Amino acid sequence: MKTHTDYLYMNTREEKGIVNITSEVTAIVDKSGVKEGLALVSAMHITAAIFINDEEPGIKQDFLEWAEKLAPQGPNYHHHRTGETNGDAHLKSVLFHHEVIVPITKGKLDFGPWQQIFYGEFDGRRKKRIIVKVMGEDS
Amino acid sequence: MKTHTDYLYMNTREEKGIVNITSEVTAIVDKSGVKEGLALVSAMHITAAIFINDEEPGIKQDFLEWAEKLAPQGPNYHHHRTGETNGDAHLKSVLFHHEVIVPITKGKLDFGPWQQIFYGEFDGRRKKRIIVKVMGEDS
Amino acid sequence: MKTHTDYLYMNTREEKGIVNITSEVTAIVDKSGVKEGLALVSAMHITAAIFINDEEPGIKQDFLEWAEKLAPQGPNYHHHRTGETNGDAHLKSVLFHHEVIVPITKGKLDFGPWQQIFYGEFDGRRKKRIIVKVMGEDS
Repeated sequence: MKTHTDYLYMNTREEKGIVNITSEVTAIVDKSGVKEGLALVSAMHITAAIFINDEEPGIKQDFLEWAEKLAPQGPNYHHHRTGETNGDAHLKSVLFHHEVIVPITKGKLDFGPWQQIFYGEFDGRRKKRIIVKVMGEDS
Repeated sequence: MKTHTDYLYMNTREEKGIVNITSEVTAIVDKSGVKEGLALVSAMHITAAIFINDEEPGIKQDFLEWAEKLAPQGPNYHHHRTGETNGDAHLKSVLFHHEVIVPITKGKLDFGPWQQIFYGEFDGRRKKRIIVKVMGEDS
Repeated sequence: MKTHTDYLYMNTREEKGIVNITSEVTAIVDKSGVKEGLALVSAMHITAAIFINDEEPGIKQDFLEWAEKLAPQGPNYHHHRTGETNGDAHLKSVLFHHEVIVPITKGKLDFGPWQQIFYGEFDGRRKKRIIVKVMGEDS
């Protein structure tokens, strides 16, 4: 049994956005040498998300607008009594979920035809971190 | 340490529906021989979900109506510029999440009294696939 | 490779609430002896959730109000034909998701600065259970 841990660093130009990180995760899985197992891909922040969907600009825009509809940015969060202004980003992180587990089969991400891994940033313009933890058999 | 990989194939008659897959997952866990570990159950499509809840017809209907309320089917998705018509199904996949991790203890799914595993189909009437990846100790 | 299984018991005084269980999970990970691996933390009930966010009273109140907005308590659930009255709690369990996977690195939860683990209770005032399943290498 083998484990491998790596980190990705994000710093989006926009406050909110969706970034495809599939190739970065693939490179870490390759480096790990794990052939059969699982990779945890998890945002280390409470205002960001990791989720799996489709690499298509329209649907990414739909996701951002949907997030805004279900967890709108605005002044009326109790969290803002602390001086923070990002209450909506906490809710969005939970809505999209902060992590995924990716199956690894024969050394590759075992994905369906359209599956890609995305980082959802809801309070960006600063350095953030994602953990990728790979666990499994190397032969 | 042991891993075992299997796939389930779905092809729902309805466009949207919720299917109990607990017995199929149980059979795969039995076949794997894993006694202590985890099973990833993950939809390989971006318009479907895997989630855990209750086998009760009323709540399944409630789930479908809730999905429709929070992520309604309709024409106004950016994704539809590609010619697709299933923007809502992508959002529903994220709302319900596309995967679960199931604990295995003494060779059995270690579940509470009401927990069952469901496949949520939001754009069906065609063949789709679920991966079940089991990992753990066989004794 | 090593696995370790433990259970936490919850019995909230309020019907709905959010409880920080980070120290209990940390103690189980310590006890497991696993140094590199993953811990599944999963509610064994279909009206509860496990999620990761921030230990701040305001945001916890925001989460409860948001849950009420997106999956309101009320009489109009099909599930209630069974005599149950907790249809909303089932939807809230799915909204927040019933489980997380926590990475373990060098024997510690490998978390970002603000990440904490929460139990979300949506139909409380009775004994409920959480499974914590740790899997990985002990050296």
